[in-house]
Amino acid sequence: MPEYRQDPVSGSWVIMARERADRPTEFAPQPTHRRGAACPFCRGNELLTPPAVATYPSKVGNGEDAWEVRVIGNKYPAVTRLDGPSVPEEPENMLYPLHPGHGVHEVIIESPDHATSLSELTAQRATWSFLAYRDRLRAVAQVPGIRQGLVFKNCRAAGGATLEHAHSQLLATSVMPPALDRELLSAARYVTAVGDCLFCRILAHERASGQRMLAETEHFAAFCPFASRFPYETWVLPKEHRPDFRQEELENLAELSGLFQRIVRALEKVFAQAPYNFWIHTSPFDMPSHDYYHWHIELISRIGTQAGFEWGSGCFVNPITPEEGARDLREAWER
Amino acid sequence: MPEYRQDPVSGSWVIMARERADRPTEFAPQPTHRRGAACPFCRGNELLTPPAVATYPSKVGNGEDAWEVRVIGNKYPAVTRLDGPSVPEEPENMLYPLHPGHGVHEVIIESPDHATSLSELTAQRATWSFLAYRDRLRAVAQVPGIRQGLVFKNCRAAGGATLEHAHSQLLATSVMPPALDRELLSAARYVTAVGDCLFCRILAHERASGQRMLAETEHFAAFCPFASRFPYETWVLPKEHRPDFRQEELENLAELSGLFQRIVRALEKVFAQAPYNFWIHTSPFDMPSHDYYHWHIELISRIGTQAGFEWGSGCFVNPITPEEGARDLREAWER
Repeated sequence: MPEYRQDPVSGSWVIMARERADRPTEFAPQPTHRRGAACPFCRGNELLTPPAVATYPSKVGNGEDAWEVRVIGNKYPAVTRLDGPSVPEEPENMLYPLHPGHGVHEVIIESPDHATSLSELTAQRATWSFLAYRDRLRAVAQVPGIRQGLVFKNCRAAGGATLEHAHSQLLATSVMPPALDRELLSAARYVTAVGDCLFCRILAHERASGQRMLAETEHFAAFCPFASRFPYETWVLPKEHRPDFRQEELENLAELSGLFQRIVRALEKVFAQAPYNFWIHTSPFDMPSHDYYHWHIELISRIGTQAGFEWGSGCFVNPITPEEGARDLREAWER
Repeated sequence: MPEYRQDPVSGSWVIMARERADRPTEFAPQPTHRRGAACPFCRGNELLTPPAVATYPSKVGNGEDAWEVRVIGNKYPAVTRLDGPSVPEEPENMLYPLHPGHGVHEVIIESPDHATSLSELTAQRATWSFLAYRDRLRAVAQVPGIRQGLVFKNCRAAGGATLEHAHSQLLATSVMPPALDRELLSAARYVTAVGDCLFCRILAHERASGQRMLAETEHFAAFCPFASRFPYETWVLPKEHRPDFRQEELENLAELSGLFQRIVRALEKVFAQAPYNFWIHTSPFDMPSHDYYHWHIELISRIGTQAGFEWGSGCFVNPITPEEGARDLREAWER
């Protein structure tokens, strides 16, 4: 059974997931990039994966292969849904916090055809993918003991993808991840000190300055953040203050997925076959609600490396400033 | 000129280092692994690198090639030593902390012959390497405005090494890295609450339990930490409470480097050609001294991948528990 363990020195949470060591590609030098008949995510191979928990458009009595976007349980889950209440186990001693690995780990398969990147999807499939992100977050928020859910995408081998076929994942946990915890703290402190949302202020500053801005649509804005950790890091925020991605309606999700496809296309023009990740940072499911927070998506390229300095210091070294990165992406946008 | 920028949301520090984009291998899919005549770290090629700032054994009027371990300035530094005082620049606005990139970035070349891993060095060269770590930390602590120095090693391509030849690095900064900051905070809180050193307590617990212990020498102990983030993660601590690596004497450094060589050899028996990193966490140079801290070295294997979940959550997924990892390493130790 998986476990959450917290390091008493760094405060990091670690999911000990022995089951994942069985993944065929876990420690292979290169992930297995199977196509066609051998790809478990291609249409017609549904029996190679766990059954669907949701499909888009909704299945209306058709066969297993009637889907455009398909959500399944992860075959090698990092965490699993536990039936009993998720209470901390007796710690080994007072030093070491330990919780049972209660959580949900799902995969969103974003096309029945073999595509690699979000940029290659039809607009409709991209929209359904973002709709699935929202719906699955809504669903796991109903599971007792789950505090938050992280939707994330790993694209291409250097982006950590173990299967090439375009997909994202949802990993919902009963512990609060340090990155989200820290963001909530920063936002709460800022609203207390300044009386305004930290993200709204950042966005206002970026729009006024312009040098790191990438694009705006009716409801969303994209820019490269001032302290970008990774080359071409891009954040996308709703222009109005909105704490919770689960509240977004289909129309906005279509706008958002279209903007995201254009961002990824620009990145792939600047750096062909760019490996990348993105994730949605949104309010945790705890009550009372986190009205001071502002949901957003962070996209990073994985064209650099992280090594001893980054892991040992928690600092990042970025050879491309966000001002240069935004300029490159804007130029690619227009090409 | 490099800059330190702090993200107002995550608190991360990022070094914006445009100079490093000129590195020949920065964005290459595989690092350049040059040998012999083409390797800038091999004996005889000293003119391909910046001049030595220190050599071991001490140079006594011999030629440039009279060295066993050689310390140079990094040719593509992430930070550089600034002559003026390191004061924060006027921030772009109140949102964005920004400092000039004042620091020192050195490379410790650990053998004149072409070796890859610490495990391949002679015992004498390994000892001189650890002596160089100590001496260079002592030296940079004298540079005005430098708050701390991180010694770290990247071994093999998947460990982030851009040159194969065995080397480590020292990156000393005028900002406090979040990882060290967090450890100092945990240790300070613990000593206030419990009246004892957090690391001494952890070590006592590990020695009593034994299931994650790896080895002990007269002055040092090695174990896999309870919440290991990476497969085969190993921490090495002085058994007595010692805050500052700079205080270690040559005799202890010889013992420590020998222990480290055996740990790396065991890792490489468990997983051939294992990519790895390690780094020294020691007291910052600020006064008053951080007597509550306990220096240690953290070693991680890089045989897994980190992707969207890890970067987006700050959590880790480890498919090998430290109990299994320690057992594997102990078995390999005896082979």
